[in-house]
Amino acid sequence: MNGTEQKGDIEFYFDFSSPYGYLAAQKIDAIGERYGRHVNWHPIMLGAIFKQTGNSANADIGLKGDYMRMDVPRLAEMMGAPFTWPEPFPISTLAAARAYYWLLDHDADKAVPFAKAVYHHYFGKGVDISDIQDVVLIAEEMGIDGAALTDAVTRDDVKQRVKDKTGEAMDLGVFGSPYFLIEGEPFFGSDRMWQIERFLGKGKTA
Amino acid sequence: MNGTEQKGDIEFYFDFSSPYGYLAAQKIDAIGERYGRHVNWHPIMLGAIFKQTGNSANADIGLKGDYMRMDVPRLAEMMGAPFTWPEPFPISTLAAARAYYWLLDHDADKAVPFAKAVYHHYFGKGVDISDIQDVVLIAEEMGIDGAALTDAVTRDDVKQRVKDKTGEAMDLGVFGSPYFLIEGEPFFGSDRMWQIERFLGKGKTA
Repeated sequence: MNGTEQKGDIEFYFDFSSPYGYLAAQKIDAIGERYGRHVNWHPIMLGAIFKQTGNSANADIGLKGDYMRMDVPRLAEMMGAPFTWPEPFPISTLAAARAYYWLLDHDADKAVPFAKAVYHHYFGKGVDISDIQDVVLIAEEMGIDGAALTDAVTRDDVKQRVKDKTGEAMDLGVFGSPYFLIEGEPFFGSDRMWQIERFLGKGKTA
Repeated sequence: MNGTEQKGDIEFYFDFSSPYGYLAAQKIDAIGERYGRHVNWHPIMLGAIFKQTGNSANADIGLKGDYMRMDVPRLAEMMGAPFTWPEPFPISTLAAARAYYWLLDHDADKAVPFAKAVYHHYFGKGVDISDIQDVVLIAEEMGIDGAALTDAVTRDDVKQRVKDKTGEAMDLGVFGSPYFLIEGEPFFGSDRMWQIERFLGKGKTA
């Protein structure tokens, strides 16, 4: 985190509307800690990536969508993670992503706890987080200035930050959520975290 | 296998052209043995299912296809399974599937070993198995009558068997490969075999 660590960070790409991203978010910091790697959280707009890459949300693919609706709660239960199907689902997570990057630039220590709180509201409690008012309520519970946040998410530079991050992710090959990059090595999906551990355990640069 | 087993069988659906099906095929019989469950192997025509369900092959989805081409050999190496990207890929596996069901009806003990041999040729050695001549060579190495097999795969009842099995799978919700059903509980993907073990370990009917 502070530059004394020479090993590569874990880059964690996710969409706040991705249930598998939520499940991965329960685990990734502990994995980072276990192997002495910092985790950088990058919320992105998966819808924009799907549009450009021709990929689709699982929820939109007939039988695959049916499976996902069964699979996610089953996985959450096996992991001991709270889970409630939110209504509506899926949603646009633009407000939450903009808030995240604004925090990262202005009150960095609160950014990841904020991301976790957003995920917890949406998939843990099943509460809508698509509207800026929802996002502000979550932020204010953490002592963040709601008025400043409300103002920030309408600013062009903050909007652009989310676009840039999403474009950057796509350039790096990110096509879904969760997606991890560690020293250039890609891992896709919440069911591949054992591979991340195996990779870190062997340690390419360790 | 012989009716003395009261617990539900493991129904294993796969396409011979599915690399993740190949990886799952390395493990599923051992899991069945460990938990006292018989495994029924069901090769199906995933292309026909994709057409009807709107799902797509990973290989056809831009960045996801790129990831898969890296992911499969990495997974195979982690599992210690031989792997060679076959050329051509993907292929129609109609001849191999017809041969499998003909064997199942006429020389049942050879059906699963034949399926394993087909997979080993295609993804282990990278040898094309799309043509009936390829399939006959594999069968003859196992002492199966090549002439009878060549004749069988052109018969209407054998062709219909593959269509029926594929339709039946789709009716059961199968949308990809590998796909498992155990007492109605579905598991999709070669990276969910830990869930199968967990499910069997708890034993709904045990």
